[in-house]
Amino acid sequence: MNAPIPAHTLPPEDLPKDLPKTVTTGPVTGSVKAYAAPRERPDLRVPYREIALTDPGEAPVRVYDPSGPYTETDARIDLSAGLPEIRAGWLAARGYGAVAPRAVKPEDNGFVAEDRLVAPCPATRTVRRGAPGQLVTQYEFARAGIVTEEMIYVAHRENLCREAMLAQAEGKIADGESFGAAIPPFITPEFVRDEVARGRAIIPANINHTEVEPMAIGRNFLVKINANIGNSAVTSSAAEEVEKMVWAIRWGADTVMDLSTGRNIHNIRGWILRNAPVPIGTVPIYQALEKVGGDPLKLDWEVFKDTLIEQAEQGVDYFTIHAGVRLAHVPLTARRVTGIVSRGGSIMARWCLAGHRESFLYERFEEICDICRAYDVSFSLGDGLRPGSIADANDAAQFAELETLGELTKVAWGKGCQVMIEGPGHVPMHKIKVNMDKQLAECGEAPFYTLGPLTTDVAPGYDHITSGIGAAMIGWFGTAMLCYVTPKEHLGLPNRDDVKTGVVTYKIAAHAADLAKGHPAAQIRDDALSRARFDFRWEDQFNLSLDPDTARAYHDETLPKDAHKVAHFCSMCGPKFCSMKITQDLRADVLAMEAASAVVGEATSLDEAARAAGMAQKSAEFLGEGGRLYVDAG
Amino acid sequence: MNAPIPAHTLPPEDLPKDLPKTVTTGPVTGSVKAYAAPRERPDLRVPYREIALTDPGEAPVRVYDPSGPYTETDARIDLSAGLPEIRAGWLAARGYGAVAPRAVKPEDNGFVAEDRLVAPCPATRTVRRGAPGQLVTQYEFARAGIVTEEMIYVAHRENLCREAMLAQAEGKIADGESFGAAIPPFITPEFVRDEVARGRAIIPANINHTEVEPMAIGRNFLVKINANIGNSAVTSSAAEEVEKMVWAIRWGADTVMDLSTGRNIHNIRGWILRNAPVPIGTVPIYQALEKVGGDPLKLDWEVFKDTLIEQAEQGVDYFTIHAGVRLAHVPLTARRVTGIVSRGGSIMARWCLAGHRESFLYERFEEICDICRAYDVSFSLGDGLRPGSIADANDAAQFAELETLGELTKVAWGKGCQVMIEGPGHVPMHKIKVNMDKQLAECGEAPFYTLGPLTTDVAPGYDHITSGIGAAMIGWFGTAMLCYVTPKEHLGLPNRDDVKTGVVTYKIAAHAADLAKGHPAAQIRDDALSRARFDFRWEDQFNLSLDPDTARAYHDETLPKDAHKVAHFCSMCGPKFCSMKITQDLRADVLAMEAASAVVGEATSLDEAARAAGMAQKSAEFLGEGGRLYVDAG
Repeated sequence: MNAPIPAHTLPPEDLPKDLPKTVTTGPVTGSVKAYAAPRERPDLRVPYREIALTDPGEAPVRVYDPSGPYTETDARIDLSAGLPEIRAGWLAARGYGAVAPRAVKPEDNGFVAEDRLVAPCPATRTVRRGAPGQLVTQYEFARAGIVTEEMIYVAHRENLCREAMLAQAEGKIADGESFGAAIPPFITPEFVRDEVARGRAIIPANINHTEVEPMAIGRNFLVKINANIGNSAVTSSAAEEVEKMVWAIRWGADTVMDLSTGRNIHNIRGWILRNAPVPIGTVPIYQALEKVGGDPLKLDWEVFKDTLIEQAEQGVDYFTIHAGVRLAHVPLTARRVTGIVSRGGSIMARWCLAGHRESFLYERFEEICDICRAYDVSFSLGDGLRPGSIADANDAAQFAELETLGELTKVAWGKGCQVMIEGPGHVPMHKIKVNMDKQLAECGEAPFYTLGPLTTDVAPGYDHITSGIGAAMIGWFGTAMLCYVTPKEHLGLPNRDDVKTGVVTYKIAAHAADLAKGHPAAQIRDDALSRARFDFRWEDQFNLSLDPDTARAYHDETLPKDAHKVAHFCSMCGPKFCSMKITQDLRADVLAMEAASAVVGEATSLDEAARAAGMAQKSAEFLGEGGRLYVDAG
Repeated sequence: MNAPIPAHTLPPEDLPKDLPKTVTTGPVTGSVKAYAAPRERPDLRVPYREIALTDPGEAPVRVYDPSGPYTETDARIDLSAGLPEIRAGWLAARGYGAVAPRAVKPEDNGFVAEDRLVAPCPATRTVRRGAPGQLVTQYEFARAGIVTEEMIYVAHRENLCREAMLAQAEGKIADGESFGAAIPPFITPEFVRDEVARGRAIIPANINHTEVEPMAIGRNFLVKINANIGNSAVTSSAAEEVEKMVWAIRWGADTVMDLSTGRNIHNIRGWILRNAPVPIGTVPIYQALEKVGGDPLKLDWEVFKDTLIEQAEQGVDYFTIHAGVRLAHVPLTARRVTGIVSRGGSIMARWCLAGHRESFLYERFEEICDICRAYDVSFSLGDGLRPGSIADANDAAQFAELETLGELTKVAWGKGCQVMIEGPGHVPMHKIKVNMDKQLAECGEAPFYTLGPLTTDVAPGYDHITSGIGAAMIGWFGTAMLCYVTPKEHLGLPNRDDVKTGVVTYKIAAHAADLAKGHPAAQIRDDALSRARFDFRWEDQFNLSLDPDTARAYHDETLPKDAHKVAHFCSMCGPKFCSMKITQDLRADVLAMEAASAVVGEATSLDEAARAAGMAQKSAEFLGEGGRLYVDAG
């Protein structure tokens, strides 16, 4: 996928100077990080974020939280020690052998000079590798009918105490169109197992990433989002690189792809993984290309295989592998408006064409599977031929590759691996759904993971929006994870604000998709915020929003005083023209009329009758008019 | 519609201090404002914006331009004189009588104190009123089979020299899904007439707004957008208010609604209209309410009628009239999460319920039609009961009102008036299309004009995005005009940056909709930009974008040097990892292979054969391998 932060090829003077020196910690404004355990496993600590509301009649709202321990109230973070190894015990019980890690080679860090080397993360971990015949991947366990700790964790995490929320919503049935997805009202560990066994969901969790908080990607779970990060040329501390990940997950990124290239990438990846509570994805061909001096024609299986093992031992949770770019597909791109826009795709196309040979990724795919299986690295089968413009959407090259990815999905499943499929890109609205339908059909419902898609090419500088539109739609249609796009896409390197804007925009797309799919309880948060809005509970409105700080800051630009936080109006209309204020008065009148009807014998509930009891005067007035609900207009 | 800028009820210290003192003039970066005349009427000057490209092989791209004379290269603007009366001659030929204008009353300007009165615009105009039996409205002319100058102007404006562009696209047939819309490859004046006669399009153009550049709103034309403006409490000059309109149309607003309330609104409206090249819409009930001291219960037909005439004489092009809020609908809103969120809707609901009487807007609707017809003020039938939250979308109240609006549409047509219909609001994705389908069915295909809709309520501060998603979708489904939402929606007063962000976001939504509908030539701009991107023509990429200044600024943040504007890479990947660079090399190879095939007897065109001639060496290499397009991988 694209939109990384790296810029190792740029002279330092061209780079932004505001890189952070520490990582961001502390709660998201207006909420508390908390943990809960499922009944069957009281030892698990499953994270969520809880937003307490100022109205005592309103239950706190629980929201999904990928931000890790960084948002705890008294977060104590020691990057050198790494995060707690929450999976160590589970994995130990599965009996994988500790292996001597592959020795780090100079090319792993891009042949960096000794004086510019970023020291490796001191948090050393046991390196595990599954043996042939052992169950290793979540897919293998699921196929064997076994529920893992990861599955129990995921089930509880996705439910977000949904029982309580559904009760609060008075048993409201999910209202949506899910296009054939089968979202249950309640997620059980067995449901997670079955979805993984069918290949419809993955739990990216390398057995060497003991720090990861398990999560699921699949269309019967909440729609997830990914943010991309990458190293910069002026890295002076590992904290700067870890901070990019911490900042992205703070705002809601569910996974992070490290698209670094150049110097120090092995060691920086180590710092990131040891401190990452979310799955980390990479594109190994990038590092492999660096190792051969940047010339695609010098790539070969040996250097690629060595890179896979290097990264798998470090704990990378999913690999983008562009094995669908076959020699026969390359000529299909020749007359495109924007050719091949995937870096991995263009590298492999060049490799294939230069030697008139089939892709080694395709030919060695079973061997790649064997490596991935041994560590439970999930596949993210790359769409190297995705369209890079509206003009190229849904063309022969794109769909030929997708068919190949379908073929490879079955190979990977046969080898016991977890698989998701990457998708476009740039697609006008009327061509989006066929992408989803074809992906489901070709790839046996393996999770789809799309970049946007951008729905028009005319707005560089606003491509988080052009793509947010497409992302919301394809998420609704069934895409399981959306790769974010920042406002700087196609133009430059995203800074902190851009990353936040990209993540929040994609949280909007994912949530809008969950709502439209009828995901149970997705509407709980919308409704809580809407009630807060109607009641003029400004603090609750801010705190329930995806970005409380910005909501509050915007409000305070025109109404900064504390008194305005409880004011029964806002700056848009002022108190006199406030429709909500008028409506509140109105509501009392209407309910009084209804209650009056109840008094005169049309009560439909005790509740209405009770209201009626308190509204004697209104009722009397009303009854004085003959008890008719409507009277003739004068 | 909501999201205005007004804040007359706020103390001055709470208001932003950065109000402009002049209006913005000069071309949008990288383009030239130009005019062209249709063959049949060489006297008409129809505006467009032309973007010249740096590649001599690329034709300039013409784009639709509502910005008026303000973006001319040497714009000479005199706000006191107003814009040229381009319609004066056309209207004179139609023979409307000049009427003595209604005298301005103290309440028209909100009883402002003499020392705070904004002087009226000195540009005095003849006030016209059509007589009974005269053809006045565009609808009446169209029904009579007459093509007006406005229709000829609109046809040429919509075509944007489409002949030339279609030729450039090699006759490419529009590729889209328009859901039953009937978009022709080329717009003729007769087509415009027929669409207006069927009620499927309107040309909002009050006979007292002689300065307006005619435009069409209808689903077989380009999707339009509206921006809202309004006065502020600290107005110190009319220029400040005019500038809000000028700024919005500069970035692409096709119409502007003036939602002002409070002091000086009559005089400020005059300044806006005399200087507005776009149709201006208002919500007359706001001013009527001011005239009765802000108490809805004091509203009556006389004050409302007087306000309609006041505004019609000034030249307002369309009125939002909330005549669909009937007494019987009010109780349907009582259990909503957010009640009634339309200001006009809540005012009328209160009026109806307090007196248990039918809406005077509904009961007097035929009289309102008579007034609108006499000046050709178009109806924008307000959705006073639109949902204000996801929870309330598509409920009984909303759809009951829509059915009433359908009934009123036919009444208005019967009276010779032009009509469009306002729509929601807050609607999750899966409930959007039924809104469009029901509107088309109930309202006889009258143009739909929607606010968003917002697809989730959880992102205050980002509601341009939550609503941009819904706007793009409903635009695709058939909505003719999209009312913008700014990032400050629900929170505060939009500033200049917010207005620009809202307009650009809605231009994205409208353009994405045009693309998906298969609007002929909509893709021209996308393709031109995509080619510029692939060719590393950075200047062209900036200039073709909806916001050239932001695109350039973002690029320059990381690659500020002029040399980088022609660099064959960008900051995202750097030169070594550039997929586009790799692809360009690749393309040469593929084309060489194809050419070689041509040499050995498979030529499909002279073009290919010609390429082959220049590629002797590549061909020789290829033929040395036996002329097979693919060779076995080694």
